[in-house]
Amino acid sequence: MLILMRSGATPEQIEAACQAVRDLGLTPHPIPGAMRTAIGITGNRGALEPSLFTRLDGVADAVPVSQPYKLVSREVKPEDTIIEVGPARLGGGSLCVMAGPCSVETRDQVLTTAAYVKAGGATMLRGGAFKPRTSPYEFQGLREEGLELLAEAREATGLPIITEVKDTESLALVARYADVLQVGARNMQNFSLLERLGDLDKPVMLKRGLASTVKEWLMAAEYIVSRGNRRVILCERGIRTFETATRNTLDLGIVPLLRAQTHLPIVVDPSHGTGYAAGVTPMARAAVATGVDGIMIEVHPDPCKALSDGPQALTFAMFDALMVDVRAIAAVMKQRV
Amino acid sequence: MLILMRSGATPEQIEAACQAVRDLGLTPHPIPGAMRTAIGITGNRGALEPSLFTRLDGVADAVPVSQPYKLVSREVKPEDTIIEVGPARLGGGSLCVMAGPCSVETRDQVLTTAAYVKAGGATMLRGGAFKPRTSPYEFQGLREEGLELLAEAREATGLPIITEVKDTESLALVARYADVLQVGARNMQNFSLLERLGDLDKPVMLKRGLASTVKEWLMAAEYIVSRGNRRVILCERGIRTFETATRNTLDLGIVPLLRAQTHLPIVVDPSHGTGYAAGVTPMARAAVATGVDGIMIEVHPDPCKALSDGPQALTFAMFDALMVDVRAIAAVMKQRV
Amino acid sequence: MLILMRSGATPEQIEAACQAVRDLGLTPHPIPGAMRTAIGITGNRGALEPSLFTRLDGVADAVPVSQPYKLVSREVKPEDTIIEVGPARLGGGSLCVMAGPCSVETRDQVLTTAAYVKAGGATMLRGGAFKPRTSPYEFQGLREEGLELLAEAREATGLPIITEVKDTESLALVARYADVLQVGARNMQNFSLLERLGDLDKPVMLKRGLASTVKEWLMAAEYIVSRGNRRVILCERGIRTFETATRNTLDLGIVPLLRAQTHLPIVVDPSHGTGYAAGVTPMARAAVATGVDGIMIEVHPDPCKALSDGPQALTFAMFDALMVDVRAIAAVMKQRV
Amino acid sequence: MLILMRSGATPEQIEAACQAVRDLGLTPHPIPGAMRTAIGITGNRGALEPSLFTRLDGVADAVPVSQPYKLVSREVKPEDTIIEVGPARLGGGSLCVMAGPCSVETRDQVLTTAAYVKAGGATMLRGGAFKPRTSPYEFQGLREEGLELLAEAREATGLPIITEVKDTESLALVARYADVLQVGARNMQNFSLLERLGDLDKPVMLKRGLASTVKEWLMAAEYIVSRGNRRVILCERGIRTFETATRNTLDLGIVPLLRAQTHLPIVVDPSHGTGYAAGVTPMARAAVATGVDGIMIEVHPDPCKALSDGPQALTFAMFDALMVDVRAIAAVMKQRV
Repeated sequence: MLILMRSGATPEQIEAACQAVRDLGLTPHPIPGAMRTAIGITGNRGALEPSLFTRLDGVADAVPVSQPYKLVSREVKPEDTIIEVGPARLGGGSLCVMAGPCSVETRDQVLTTAAYVKAGGATMLRGGAFKPRTSPYEFQGLREEGLELLAEAREATGLPIITEVKDTESLALVARYADVLQVGARNMQNFSLLERLGDLDKPVMLKRGLASTVKEWLMAAEYIVSRGNRRVILCERGIRTFETATRNTLDLGIVPLLRAQTHLPIVVDPSHGTGYAAGVTPMARAAVATGVDGIMIEVHPDPCKALSDGPQALTFAMFDALMVDVRAIAAVMKQRV
Repeated sequence: MLILMRSGATPEQIEAACQAVRDLGLTPHPIPGAMRTAIGITGNRGALEPSLFTRLDGVADAVPVSQPYKLVSREVKPEDTIIEVGPARLGGGSLCVMAGPCSVETRDQVLTTAAYVKAGGATMLRGGAFKPRTSPYEFQGLREEGLELLAEAREATGLPIITEVKDTESLALVARYADVLQVGARNMQNFSLLERLGDLDKPVMLKRGLASTVKEWLMAAEYIVSRGNRRVILCERGIRTFETATRNTLDLGIVPLLRAQTHLPIVVDPSHGTGYAAGVTPMARAAVATGVDGIMIEVHPDPCKALSDGPQALTFAMFDALMVDVRAIAAVMKQRV
Repeated sequence: MLILMRSGATPEQIEAACQAVRDLGLTPHPIPGAMRTAIGITGNRGALEPSLFTRLDGVADAVPVSQPYKLVSREVKPEDTIIEVGPARLGGGSLCVMAGPCSVETRDQVLTTAAYVKAGGATMLRGGAFKPRTSPYEFQGLREEGLELLAEAREATGLPIITEVKDTESLALVARYADVLQVGARNMQNFSLLERLGDLDKPVMLKRGLASTVKEWLMAAEYIVSRGNRRVILCERGIRTFETATRNTLDLGIVPLLRAQTHLPIVVDPSHGTGYAAGVTPMARAAVATGVDGIMIEVHPDPCKALSDGPQALTFAMFDALMVDVRAIAAVMKQRV
Repeated sequence: MLILMRSGATPEQIEAACQAVRDLGLTPHPIPGAMRTAIGITGNRGALEPSLFTRLDGVADAVPVSQPYKLVSREVKPEDTIIEVGPARLGGGSLCVMAGPCSVETRDQVLTTAAYVKAGGATMLRGGAFKPRTSPYEFQGLREEGLELLAEAREATGLPIITEVKDTESLALVARYADVLQVGARNMQNFSLLERLGDLDKPVMLKRGLASTVKEWLMAAEYIVSRGNRRVILCERGIRTFETATRNTLDLGIVPLLRAQTHLPIVVDPSHGTGYAAGVTPMARAAVATGVDGIMIEVHPDPCKALSDGPQALTFAMFDALMVDVRAIAAVMKQRV
């Protein structure tokens, strides 16, 4: 924390600010300047509230100078976290392809899709059984029946399952079936859910919130990791901006930044990130080219009939074409698919 | 729903789109144009998925033309919803002033503040006992002890209590104490929580999400109302934009729009909406001048020592000054305070 | 500027950073901390480029700690700037009402509107003769003919004229007619235009850019003031956010902040700020309630036939109703209208 | 244009809306529905103003259903526009690499950099001589001297030059030296400048504005093309969002959308798009993987000493590494570099 005094602050005001620091058991370091005085602070363990100082007379601002997250940061753990889920692997030079329908709709739909994406090279099966929907009148998922169908698809293909958990009530149920628990964008700061996930021994994929900064996202991951569950995967799925020509704005530019700041594996979801099928394959290629550990792709046997997110689902033929491209880019990145 | 064919779509493609409409049991209405053909659809009860049509050959776009929410809309219920909570009243020409600390911290803090804001003209006491915090290392609230202190303050002052419920687990507990249940911005699309609140017989104040559109906000209210709980209050508390000079961007411009679209009462929270104490009173005046039914104000006996949101809390003296201003503007608006 | 070393930076790296500061003729102030060392810098006159330091080994970040604008700041000039334009006055406790059509369209339209708004209490006439339009196929304004009609309206009513200047080519022409030169949102960072305006002896109203921060806006004003033209008015007219239910998001929450940071007069434009006629009067009231020096209102004899911005124009009757409300709120604010 | 009547609109109101359409010489097509009536319109050539109808009694909304741009659209010209500039080529399966310093600073700097990037595979030299800067106190470029140095570098290397033109005053001068004229983000809607560029016979690269939608960007391009200059290149360089961890948010997700909507060549600038050197190479790879026609890269012999944009400039060694990666991805995309 750095306290910035106003230009024209009196010596008494500066001393009062220093005393406020000492009152907290910390050490102030005044730095007199031509225009104004700044006061550095040492001795604190975590972040300080700026308001401890900003309302003192003569104080212009108080600027935090350290990151508030710890366990998820590379400063604390320099080497990559690698997460293995059956045959799938996140981190450490592999590219994990998660594919499947947005929602589990019918036995035939999920089994057919699972078999197809497995054959095409997917290493994890995605599918939603509990669906958070913007409107109460929309399809909310098959719930436990959907989980059973996913389990049957796993049985048939060997693919581990990733599926969304939307609340703490259904957590135990979903955790019985899922290999990886997905937290959706709207739940990124559902702290009660994050705490429960932190107590489990099961990998969690945490999607970035629609309007969440990288810092908030890492703090949300810290909620899980700080309770003991260190197997957290970050998933960029697009943010909300002024541009409505695409459903979301896929923020690939933070991938290299995340790599520097955290050791957690990074996945990108170009299906939600673009919201239109013709955008998915180009952005899947782009995601792999930034150097991510995985991609998540929505595939549907007949997207026109999908009960959710039809516009962004790939047909089987489109998925095949995507995999050709993804393998080629992954080869450039020296990743195993 | 209006289907827009591409310029150059063939008669066969147009007929195929019409047939897709008929297959759903609906009626297509082709409108030939100079540049392209559009197809209106009638017979549907709710919204249709655009993707049912956008992926057909020759279709350029499918544009929804009706609002997806119903029960919260003025089209369905033209007259204002009025919510009475003990002596406080939301809607119908009153101005409800909710005031109190961000977090309940100590018995003395909450009792002193409650007595002060009551004397100054507040009609409801706010105070957080369960605090959702961005970091797992920050103060999370006094929980049940905080609720008990709020109840004691209600006993002492007669002010009804509004407090946040942050998850379904603590809902029954919070509902035992609270007069109005507040849903925070980060929970606006916590649909499981909304559903539980819809089953209760207790007013709910639903804060707008940081990046939620008016339409999504009304859909979230529809979740509650569609399950039977019609006493929902909307609270604008600032949205997230590119501007970081203020903590949030208080979006007052949607108030007249909300008035036209919904019958629910509208409250504005200028404390979170600005994030700095010097901005609260001007924006409280502005909010009242737009014609809202209530304002929510954070007040603290010693903001420099507040455990949360200190920079935006008003001192007692600042609250007195705010009430002078608010009464004057409310008089112009012909509202009772 | 504060240089933040990485945790684990070596003494040699810290010394190298200090030396880089000395090489610039400045003085480094190392502040050793438990986690990391920070280095304060004194002796510089203006802002430093962070990149002078961020790319040195062992440096984590370099944080600017002073504002880059000077002449427009209250630190440099504490007292309000008051601008008088004929009978109109901006700053110093008056409320200036600028009203008139978006575009000057016909002689009858502008003269009728001018007479009407004058009678209703407006103190300045607005009207566009050179219109920047998103599409090359839209109405671009009557140009010099429009300026002549504005001058005729001034002659008839005594109202000074504010009109937009859209480029340097037409600046001399527009300046011959206008009493106040308006810079539109899209030109806020047209630095060549700002420089020319800085050389004139005529008030300038600088609208905030659609996605401009307060800091960038004040820097743009600094461009004008630093060349000698100190009569600059700031006009908030709404920013671009994710919300499209309103045309723009009127950012009133920055008004108290601007008041603290700058001595320049502040105007709000609720017509562009909301984009819908039913929103204009409530937001005009709100703007006045925040304590601004003026408002700018679009009025048209027949908004359905307006050649630009019809949806947000007030009819004459709506303008009368607005003035009743605005006078009442201004009275609360102790402002002369 | 589709007019949506309110539910409950009377037959007289519907007829009045139809008559308003006929009054414009157009044909109304009423579509009665269960909930409400919609009215399609045919016969118009361009876009209609919604406000022509939205203010009529009983009208809920008026929705535009065709795109306002024409000449830049694929509907009008299906085949790609290919632009050749000396040895460089934009469109048609080539990848153009534009590289060089942000600002031209010294003869040595620009000649050394030009020679280096030429050797590394760049096909065009970038460099700014006229620099629009946020602050009036920052380095504004070497102006004509900078242009002369660029010309000298072209002479020495054979690389064509792309450089920014920041206003109409300097346009003739800049056009004398430049092979491609670059319009910066802040000038994307400087319509006077766009019109002058439309009258020239020289390629123009139009950067997307910080908060400009794809539609506005294409309309800005339409300004140039509609005056006869068909050689326009679009350059995505990042948009402004709530996220400040990166300088801008590079919006690659619109690339496939642009490809479908326009025939103009597309370039991406990952230097401004990320704002930090470590992000440039990954995002350059990603851009190529989306299928663009070119990338623009800032390179500086000593980024720590750069007079502008130092944090995002690549060193020579970093540029070499980037070219290795870019060639590999371009090979996957079957592009010639």
